[in-house]
Amino acid sequence: MVAISRAIQTGYGSEIMREQEVLKIIREQVAEAGDDAALLLFRNTYLILTTDMLHRTSDFPEGTTARTIGWRSVAVSLSDLAAMGAQPLGILLAVADPKLDEELIRGILAGARACCDSAGTRLVGGDIDRLDELTLVSTGIGEAKRPVHRYGAQSGDLVCVTGVLGRTQAALSLFATEEIARANDLFCFLPRVDWGIKLAAHATSMIDISDGLAHSLHLLARESRVGCSIEEELLPVIPDLTQAIPSASRSEASHTVASLIEAILFGGEDYELLFTLPESAIPAINPAVHYTVIGRATDGAVLIDGYKLPDRGYEH
Amino acid sequence: MVAISRAIQTGYGSEIMREQEVLKIIREQVAEAGDDAALLLFRNTYLILTTDMLHRTSDFPEGTTARTIGWRSVAVSLSDLAAMGAQPLGILLAVADPKLDEELIRGILAGARACCDSAGTRLVGGDIDRLDELTLVSTGIGEAKRPVHRYGAQSGDLVCVTGVLGRTQAALSLFATEEIARANDLFCFLPRVDWGIKLAAHATSMIDISDGLAHSLHLLARESRVGCSIEEELLPVIPDLTQAIPSASRSEASHTVASLIEAILFGGEDYELLFTLPESAIPAINPAVHYTVIGRATDGAVLIDGYKLPDRGYEH
Repeated sequence: MVAISRAIQTGYGSEIMREQEVLKIIREQVAEAGDDAALLLFRNTYLILTTDMLHRTSDFPEGTTARTIGWRSVAVSLSDLAAMGAQPLGILLAVADPKLDEELIRGILAGARACCDSAGTRLVGGDIDRLDELTLVSTGIGEAKRPVHRYGAQSGDLVCVTGVLGRTQAALSLFATEEIARANDLFCFLPRVDWGIKLAAHATSMIDISDGLAHSLHLLARESRVGCSIEEELLPVIPDLTQAIPSASRSEASHTVASLIEAILFGGEDYELLFTLPESAIPAINPAVHYTVIGRATDGAVLIDGYKLPDRGYEH
Repeated sequence: MVAISRAIQTGYGSEIMREQEVLKIIREQVAEAGDDAALLLFRNTYLILTTDMLHRTSDFPEGTTARTIGWRSVAVSLSDLAAMGAQPLGILLAVADPKLDEELIRGILAGARACCDSAGTRLVGGDIDRLDELTLVSTGIGEAKRPVHRYGAQSGDLVCVTGVLGRTQAALSLFATEEIARANDLFCFLPRVDWGIKLAAHATSMIDISDGLAHSLHLLARESRVGCSIEEELLPVIPDLTQAIPSASRSEASHTVASLIEAILFGGEDYELLFTLPESAIPAINPAVHYTVIGRATDGAVLIDGYKLPDRGYEH
């Protein structure tokens, strides 16, 4: 939530300044902390609320199926809830389309329902509208007795990431080379709701990496007033992404290797959870949670292999 | 919520069939009753959720200020909560604009906040995005221990409406004649949150009339399995609307008079509350609630002055 889309096709990292300014205006005007979702104290617990807008040109490459569109629209909101350690209570989905095409709408709703099912929640309402471009707005509501914030990381904590990195970048490569079935499969990521809930008891801070790993590390460090030092060789990369880079160029040109790590660090929109926790908490983490330790929180800057990690993000 | 926009400019009543079909698909797929908002049972109370999408060409005539756009975007969701008798807990607002113009965004957020203030609630979060057309999606969350549904009206109940009718139609006329200040003033309607809460203890059914009075009467009658009989002379019409129709033509041509009552019955998008209650409950209604009795629920059809009232609606 509170993120700004621009075309996936334009890549990442360029025109962030203006968007940051608009975000700042929103933060000034809205009763919202710098978290993945908004919190409402309600009867000794917190209601967690998030809303996300996606649309055809920015978020869904040629070849994306209606089911994938519906799935992903819901999954981005569930990922925001997951990043707070929240139990989802329900999802609303507003869909706008120029033609209100029945097959498209059916496909989108089927995908949205399937994604809700995967996270043990339900599509409880929605709105439809006519608009020149297919646009979807999903709203997630969840509950967390002890929500996990972006702030809270302590110097010395381990920095960890769930799952594997580069899933969306791999999907985009596959869409580009028209390997449509696998691309859609990768695009329908499983929101880390269950892992988020399991991690909530132990994590000192958490965020989803939908803005890219580098920018998410900076956000978490800034909110927690720590630095962090991560190691490139520890980053868990999805095999589809390494395969998507032609091996010939990988062996001959260092710039291509650079573009792999660039994609991992600065590309979006992955929906894994980035979190911190004290090393002593490791044994208590439920073994169902797949995660990798990628570094440590420090008193210094945000570093990768000892070098400053630029705060370039992917703004989706 | 669960409504379909089409251009205000196209008037009302024509191409409903296709949209009704799409709505039917949504209802099939989504765990949603035919109410203004979705309900989630949560800790012995109900969370009430609603989402609404508005955009420039359909919902905001030339001359609408940024503040009015923000106000109205929030007000439509608050009206849905009001129609359930819910206490608002918070509002999320997603804004998409081609240019992310700072003045526009500031104006919209100021209007949105002012509308939240008017209903004793807060803007708690949001999302921003780039889209070719200015588009806003507001999500309201509220709470009601005893939500009021569209079903529940009993034959013999009084049929009542809050406030006055024709406010939006009057505003549209004023926008058309470039009386911009008064048009914006009328367009910033006060959502009937306080009245909705006060009515919730007594009303047997309730709905907001954003789809037009006639269609809302039909929806309420259908969900409650009753008929109703209303009287034209009882309908409380906003003076701005009668003034907006040139008095010369009113006195000479019956079709112009017809267009006034047509605007009241079939035009949108008014956000007053239509509700039913037993006559015996009248003395108990808090005198702060402004309302007018316009007819009675019956065992028959939906009638106005004894004639069948067509189920033509305004779908926003």
